[in-house]
Amino acid sequence: MATDSWVNETLYSAWGQRFLVKRELARVQSQFQDIMVFESHTHGRVMLLDGVVQITEADEFVYQEMLTHVPLLAHGAATRVLIIGAGDGGVLRRVLQHRNVERAVMVEIDGEVIRLAKEHLPGIAGDAWNDPRAEVIVGDGIDYVRQAASGSFDVVIVDSTDPIGVGEVLFTDEFYANSARLLSGRGLIVNQCGVPFMQADELRDTNARRAKAFPDTHAYVAAVPTYVGGFMTLGWAAKDASLRQVPVEEIRQRAQAAGVLGTTRYWTPEIHAGAFNLPPYIAKALAG
Amino acid sequence: MATDSWVNETLYSAWGQRFLVKRELARVQSQFQDIMVFESHTHGRVMLLDGVVQITEADEFVYQEMLTHVPLLAHGAATRVLIIGAGDGGVLRRVLQHRNVERAVMVEIDGEVIRLAKEHLPGIAGDAWNDPRAEVIVGDGIDYVRQAASGSFDVVIVDSTDPIGVGEVLFTDEFYANSARLLSGRGLIVNQCGVPFMQADELRDTNARRAKAFPDTHAYVAAVPTYVGGFMTLGWAAKDASLRQVPVEEIRQRAQAAGVLGTTRYWTPEIHAGAFNLPPYIAKALAG
Repeated sequence: MATDSWVNETLYSAWGQRFLVKRELARVQSQFQDIMVFESHTHGRVMLLDGVVQITEADEFVYQEMLTHVPLLAHGAATRVLIIGAGDGGVLRRVLQHRNVERAVMVEIDGEVIRLAKEHLPGIAGDAWNDPRAEVIVGDGIDYVRQAASGSFDVVIVDSTDPIGVGEVLFTDEFYANSARLLSGRGLIVNQCGVPFMQADELRDTNARRAKAFPDTHAYVAAVPTYVGGFMTLGWAAKDASLRQVPVEEIRQRAQAAGVLGTTRYWTPEIHAGAFNLPPYIAKALAG
Repeated sequence: MATDSWVNETLYSAWGQRFLVKRELARVQSQFQDIMVFESHTHGRVMLLDGVVQITEADEFVYQEMLTHVPLLAHGAATRVLIIGAGDGGVLRRVLQHRNVERAVMVEIDGEVIRLAKEHLPGIAGDAWNDPRAEVIVGDGIDYVRQAASGSFDVVIVDSTDPIGVGEVLFTDEFYANSARLLSGRGLIVNQCGVPFMQADELRDTNARRAKAFPDTHAYVAAVPTYVGGFMTLGWAAKDASLRQVPVEEIRQRAQAAGVLGTTRYWTPEIHAGAFNLPPYIAKALAG
């Protein structure tokens, strides 16, 4: 690709974002997907999978903070965390920020994503790869949850592509049933559910599947700059409905104890609590 | 323009959104700006001014509801509202939804925007143009605020382009000083302040100017799908700081009394209250 050409995101066929490319850093066809990393003029380095923006250096903090700190602090005593996907290492880094986390297992199916992130986006994961509490597995998340011992994790975080292509199997009944089984008594799972203004079906359909395996399902929102189209939703499925009603001051104390308070650029205790208040157009999409 | 060609938004030079055009409806060079209206495949009809998306039929509700209902319900007893810009009529329609509003004056500099909105985007304003409480002036908002009587309005809503080109004069010291003078004792002014992830300077600079004329300045956020780049901020300048601390239940009662509760697709009492909680990256931009 020529320097200073445009990359058009291909997520939607008739609308989307585009980036002027300063320099292409990698373009690899892995066993699973087309991976591209480039330097932009506006967002630092950017990684695309099959033409869809996964992460940019400039705005990754929004998504990572909300996908990680919200479930961990809502739980309040999570020591064992399972991460599915998230090959860039950004979620792993945020999970390991929490002092009380003793074990973080990350299962990413595509080793090439990890390799390219380590090479071209080293700041996203920082030192997380070498943390003794981390176990990074290149493998199939579906198999992992099938074989994991019952009650062996407190929180599951799914950072996948949309439920098309490689990511589709992470939104099935079987996946959620296994997740419910491997989670401890107050356990919960979160996963990215797209941008409901553009993808209302995705939120509705995946929520219906989560509801078969968990007594409490909902969603919460985050305004991620490069997941364009208004709020993105993060799906929420828990065994205990009180987890999404923890008062702001309690969340603040937990964040202080975890070592997270004051380290964030998007997440705050107030934003945490407020993220469960859905605009009616999203609440309607969730209800289906 | 050929059918099914792409329109690239020109707001930022190296990143932005694009729309596949189903059909071009109008392209006019007015005395002030280049106006384009087209039918999209994804967002209904879309209006651009000088290459920048102003409104789409599909997501206008987010911006209009947050720009209108938040200041009117925070005030609680606004009967006289001044709207600067907003030539599509969408803010006017939302203002007139409030039963207690007795007079809404709208001053739009470009009559061609009004004409094209009436012709091609009639659903945006609905019947607002014919409401006996509405006075629509094609003229200069700067002159209007200079000449308006002291204390003659309770709320001013500025729905302008960014502080470049035509919109620039709506962000000056003189404009804010006149606004403070024409507002009543508990009066406030809101205006759109761009997307701080991309335009942090705009928020900082305009907030500093508002602070010269008003004792309480802040900002609140809305996730508008086609103002891409994460949260947009709406600038807030008030004579009474308590207006942004009205409890959720009080806001709900006011919305019920005004006839607004249950009519919205983005705004809710909870989202109203939560919108003043800024992510740290935005709070930092605001502080400068």
